[in-house]
Amino acid sequence: MERIRHLPAAAAEPPSRTVTLAPPHGEPLDDPATYERNVENFIGTVRVPVGIAGPLAVNGSAARGTYYVPLATTEAALVASYSRGAQLLTRAGGCTARVLDARMRRAPVFRFADLREATAGALWVRENGERLRAAAEATSRHARLLEIGTLIEGNHLYLDCAYATGEAAGQNMVTFATEALCAELLAHAPVRPRSFAVESNASGDKKAAAQSLLATRGRRVCADAIVPAALLEERLRVTPAMLAAYWRTGAVAAAMTGTIGMQGMYANALAAFYLATGQDVACVAESAVGITRLDVAPDGALYASVTMPNVVVATVGGGTGLPTQRAAAKLLSRGDEAPSADALAEIVAGIVLAGEISLTASLCAHEFACAHRRFARDGANAATSRVHLTGVPA
Amino acid sequence: MERIRHLPAAAAEPPSRTVTLAPPHGEPLDDPATYERNVENFIGTVRVPVGIAGPLAVNGSAARGTYYVPLATTEAALVASYSRGAQLLTRAGGCTARVLDARMRRAPVFRFADLREATAGALWVRENGERLRAAAEATSRHARLLEIGTLIEGNHLYLDCAYATGEAAGQNMVTFATEALCAELLAHAPVRPRSFAVESNASGDKKAAAQSLLATRGRRVCADAIVPAALLEERLRVTPAMLAAYWRTGAVAAAMTGTIGMQGMYANALAAFYLATGQDVACVAESAVGITRLDVAPDGALYASVTMPNVVVATVGGGTGLPTQRAAAKLLSRGDEAPSADALAEIVAGIVLAGEISLTASLCAHEFACAHRRFARDGANAATSRVHLTGVPA
Amino acid sequence: MERIRHLPAAAAEPPSRTVTLAPPHGEPLDDPATYERNVENFIGTVRVPVGIAGPLAVNGSAARGTYYVPLATTEAALVASYSRGAQLLTRAGGCTARVLDARMRRAPVFRFADLREATAGALWVRENGERLRAAAEATSRHARLLEIGTLIEGNHLYLDCAYATGEAAGQNMVTFATEALCAELLAHAPVRPRSFAVESNASGDKKAAAQSLLATRGRRVCADAIVPAALLEERLRVTPAMLAAYWRTGAVAAAMTGTIGMQGMYANALAAFYLATGQDVACVAESAVGITRLDVAPDGALYASVTMPNVVVATVGGGTGLPTQRAAAKLLSRGDEAPSADALAEIVAGIVLAGEISLTASLCAHEFACAHRRFARDGANAATSRVHLTGVPA
Amino acid sequence: MERIRHLPAAAAEPPSRTVTLAPPHGEPLDDPATYERNVENFIGTVRVPVGIAGPLAVNGSAARGTYYVPLATTEAALVASYSRGAQLLTRAGGCTARVLDARMRRAPVFRFADLREATAGALWVRENGERLRAAAEATSRHARLLEIGTLIEGNHLYLDCAYATGEAAGQNMVTFATEALCAELLAHAPVRPRSFAVESNASGDKKAAAQSLLATRGRRVCADAIVPAALLEERLRVTPAMLAAYWRTGAVAAAMTGTIGMQGMYANALAAFYLATGQDVACVAESAVGITRLDVAPDGALYASVTMPNVVVATVGGGTGLPTQRAAAKLLSRGDEAPSADALAEIVAGIVLAGEISLTASLCAHEFACAHRRFARDGANAATSRVHLTGVPA
Repeated sequence: MERIRHLPAAAAEPPSRTVTLAPPHGEPLDDPATYERNVENFIGTVRVPVGIAGPLAVNGSAARGTYYVPLATTEAALVASYSRGAQLLTRAGGCTARVLDARMRRAPVFRFADLREATAGALWVRENGERLRAAAEATSRHARLLEIGTLIEGNHLYLDCAYATGEAAGQNMVTFATEALCAELLAHAPVRPRSFAVESNASGDKKAAAQSLLATRGRRVCADAIVPAALLEERLRVTPAMLAAYWRTGAVAAAMTGTIGMQGMYANALAAFYLATGQDVACVAESAVGITRLDVAPDGALYASVTMPNVVVATVGGGTGLPTQRAAAKLLSRGDEAPSADALAEIVAGIVLAGEISLTASLCAHEFACAHRRFARDGANAATSRVHLTGVPA
Repeated sequence: MERIRHLPAAAAEPPSRTVTLAPPHGEPLDDPATYERNVENFIGTVRVPVGIAGPLAVNGSAARGTYYVPLATTEAALVASYSRGAQLLTRAGGCTARVLDARMRRAPVFRFADLREATAGALWVRENGERLRAAAEATSRHARLLEIGTLIEGNHLYLDCAYATGEAAGQNMVTFATEALCAELLAHAPVRPRSFAVESNASGDKKAAAQSLLATRGRRVCADAIVPAALLEERLRVTPAMLAAYWRTGAVAAAMTGTIGMQGMYANALAAFYLATGQDVACVAESAVGITRLDVAPDGALYASVTMPNVVVATVGGGTGLPTQRAAAKLLSRGDEAPSADALAEIVAGIVLAGEISLTASLCAHEFACAHRRFARDGANAATSRVHLTGVPA
Repeated sequence: MERIRHLPAAAAEPPSRTVTLAPPHGEPLDDPATYERNVENFIGTVRVPVGIAGPLAVNGSAARGTYYVPLATTEAALVASYSRGAQLLTRAGGCTARVLDARMRRAPVFRFADLREATAGALWVRENGERLRAAAEATSRHARLLEIGTLIEGNHLYLDCAYATGEAAGQNMVTFATEALCAELLAHAPVRPRSFAVESNASGDKKAAAQSLLATRGRRVCADAIVPAALLEERLRVTPAMLAAYWRTGAVAAAMTGTIGMQGMYANALAAFYLATGQDVACVAESAVGITRLDVAPDGALYASVTMPNVVVATVGGGTGLPTQRAAAKLLSRGDEAPSADALAEIVAGIVLAGEISLTASLCAHEFACAHRRFARDGANAATSRVHLTGVPA
Repeated sequence: MERIRHLPAAAAEPPSRTVTLAPPHGEPLDDPATYERNVENFIGTVRVPVGIAGPLAVNGSAARGTYYVPLATTEAALVASYSRGAQLLTRAGGCTARVLDARMRRAPVFRFADLREATAGALWVRENGERLRAAAEATSRHARLLEIGTLIEGNHLYLDCAYATGEAAGQNMVTFATEALCAELLAHAPVRPRSFAVESNASGDKKAAAQSLLATRGRRVCADAIVPAALLEERLRVTPAMLAAYWRTGAVAAAMTGTIGMQGMYANALAAFYLATGQDVACVAESAVGITRLDVAPDGALYASVTMPNVVVATVGGGTGLPTQRAAAKLLSRGDEAPSADALAEIVAGIVLAGEISLTASLCAHEFACAHRRFARDGANAATSRVHLTGVPA
């Protein structure tokens, strides 16, 4: 990735600061050695275009400021839609964002002879928490065991081991720690299980499960904003009441179809952001779950929020250290300070919120098909003549 | 992406044919014009390393032959694990695969004054199927309306419009067609709705929903294989009974956690394959859903299958035409013949099946943590000294 | 059950006609012979008190008129709450109700050697629909096969056999018919399955499943009503906006907890009505699923609806012919005409709608605890002094 | 209910002790005063026949002994099926049963101005646990607050208040306690919510939700048993392998249909037991959820278990004190000692386990339709000539 090639087409105003990408001068971008710890049987690289969406003002606990968010995608209209949502939020004073919990989980399973033995096993776990914690935490300087849950099903004993993993996503870290925890149980528990596995499929690893809405995996983060009705109408040609009415139809649609969560389209932003910044893009399967709300606030403004219980982001490990990914993530630095994983999560929530408003508005204003038609057929330049996506009259 | 740099580390045997990637000579890989129809506010590209997994023998309806499957990922051990699964399947005679259904859906919603009017609206839709079909199909040479379902909830009328979309994923195609269908309804139905939207959130677009297991979106594809016990033990150091016992713990884990589907880890293969071949990687949110089964067959062999109802693949549109993505997809050509979307779906099912067996075996043989530790810490060369992933003794 | 003992305490106005229960004179109410086709190992009867809720005005397709609805329960405040909701609806002009679909389902499963054979089996089923229908319908004068769906998972073939069953619930009828259908397949299909069962667990029989919201089992019925704001405030001390705001919190709660449906409390009415009228009360497990909506209508009134896809009611079979149950159901006759199963379903939807409004209002007005305290502690007479449940000030 | 009328038809052997029901001599069984605290607008009683299933040997923590279980139902074949399952378990040495957790929950919701205030509210709750507990527990001698969970969604704060409620089901008790808890928050929290409700719909009250599998409401209880293959074949004409193969088809069916849990048919036993013993039968909607497992044990025997997280039973309150219900529950006394709520839960799990085995066996042996046909058409006497249900040859 090199210097920014052209100004963002959909930016409402010139960026307040010059967006530059540090070019990874001299880094061997297609050398197998660069990717040696990231892939096996390397045959080359695939290139995915990155656009920036913003400005996005976030009033978070960790993320505080105005951001241009890098999104890697091959789907036309995606960046433009997030960008117009971000600009709207920024005009409205920005969104609030909060990381409410952070934990990575592994869920081993032990198969005993019968219920009696499984119950004895669970009891031993409950009574030996400190011993198990010591074994688990000995495997890493960063892993901290927060909790061990026990769940019995017949002769199966499932554990739910939740860890703090610092700036790493921690998927491997918790595997190593839980392996040690299991070894401790196998060595010392009075009843020996017939078999075990370090992961039972109950942790929610890269899968959408109802559990994920209740139990954090990665970071649980919320963002909300209040958008004045006049601003919404001027920019997106819809009223708060139109969005709230649509939200009800969408909420019911989610319930009727057995959807995990009640959201519009988190996956687009998540995949694009994860890809651009070197996160594990397969985690979209679990991260793209959450609750969006679009209400009319008491004063007639739009109240909008997203609640995302499974955002998996990191600043170390995985693809975060690769040259182009590092360059993209650097866009989110404040001065010399790189964003923390908490800040990344708050920015993700902010951009997802921007997208939910923009998408819903385009559906309500009947501009959804139109936007896709223009960007996919005519290309990004189609939009340069106007700040907003143009729509058919509602 | 250029010529293959080194032979696949984890390949059990030398590839039966020389794998080559056609280098995209002279194509402007970082020129904004290349990506003009794929992204807005372009600032550069992010590069994701691609490894190949295989050989994978597939006895499909559309995919027939042995494949080296390109997977773009930054997660260590991923390609190695799929590769060893693919080699096992190939040794066992390959997997069977079948596309059972193909359709892309949009689900508009109409809000009426009350139940009486919504019922009248639904009746009109049922009686005017041909008129609606004509309106929808007039928007595209490729879209064919297969079915219109109606669902009433109070004063809401939801339609479920299912289309055949040929070689395209069809997400935009069905939007345009459904927009025309809605316009026809608005112009001619005897009762006018108060509002409508072309997508209600009921189509399952990039979301995991229970509905998706019952109702195809994209391609519904199954793959299965029978693996002799001796081969399984020799290659993966586990018995069919061990895998079947693990499957039961995983099936229960899925049920207890409210998981959509009953699968191990589809997301890794899907994200890596979609990314490498220019599919829409955000679709992982809906595609990573399905049913895996690992049983002991009557003769003591392993019976393994995957059922995936929402594989969204295409050979035209989106990112499929971009230079590096096109080069990666070309790996899957038979002679001069590029694979069809059906063939891609069958290959996806095959590689996912390979991964489910490999992953489960590593969990049962207690090699899961070990594999991740070696590849992530020591890099891909760590594996060159041995064909298999080495594991701790079970 | 004998003549009505006292006038309904919570009735807002004197019943417009005299409610009488035909006493089952001379019927042997505790004689084993009476229950010979309903229970084995008979040791006596348990008596459950019945209260009546109403008047409830229903503008249905099958149910047209004002009803006093018999509810058998041991839970204090239940009848009173439904009664006040019913009176409110009646004052507002009654509710609209519609049976939208009616079908009873069985879902046999066939286990084949592999995917190839399962696919062949499915193909045979699709090509031999008429033969299968003939076999199924030969078992009963009432069963009519509406549809056979096929679903393949690996080497499993599931069928979804949907029947019209007339005035019977049809649970046994569809078992017999599907058994014959299976026998036909076993005798004639070119590929023989290794095993089969007449019910695979996929029909949703007495279980809550996401499928049930999309696929009718029993009767799919909706009811809605528009209640003027002034009437709502006068009677229930809440505004439409309060109910709509509560609805949003409840909708989100349903999504976060992975609830099947989006409803308040259907189970109370269903269990009480099923029990009183001799329906199969175990069906509450599947029937208590649906979507409730409470919105503010354009003119400021309350828009309220319930959508119930799995109401299992009958006028013949099961407990419907037992003396006291028959007497209770007779309360719902119009003149000499007993209600049809469709009419029962529309009445059920109406009383459930009444309950949703009453319950939500008591939660919003902070009278929920109070009502339960008074009825459970002080008994039904507590309420006789006032028409409404008294509440603490909001 | 009076003295037992005839010996149980399906009992394999003469009951080891004489089953007698204490007749409720002189109690006014149809007098409104009897039901004054259980129903409003009383018009009479409905009578439901009770059969007994057993003997059922339970090796529980609270329930220890052999029981004849009263089941109130109008569905033919139901009691006979549970009875043959119970006899099988008893022959096999009985089932093990354990109550693993007990708690009743209320989930109030507070709506704040925005996320910031909701977060402040949650913080206050976490810091004021003792104050809230004191307020809640002051409302009852029996309620003990076990835990308060907090869950933020945008500007909504949900609490999950879990209580021990002793021998009562506690649905009202926790409402009163939580109302006091809410009042304490409203009076003292630094940020005032805009509205609140004592129940948000997130407690799972009488609804099937994925949450219920993870979070106990009522009693979480497991039962398991090991049944020798020879006994199973002799009595039910099936092998453990047949049941295990069927279980796999049923597990997959549950996953594909989005079922909450993975069970055959809990609702029948639960409705019949709840009804007979005066429990709240509407709770079937939440109780009929769980995990059944049927495996082949290492020695070739059948391993069978049920895991039920939401059994709502009580020995005081609701309908438990009514004359006929009290008489039925008394059947479960050991000498003079009435069963505790824990014992009731363990007996429920035992009879449900019996039913799962019996039902699955009848499906595998293709006797399911036959049994229903005989009992429903020919009546209970049909079975007296034979101990087992007769079936068509497999």
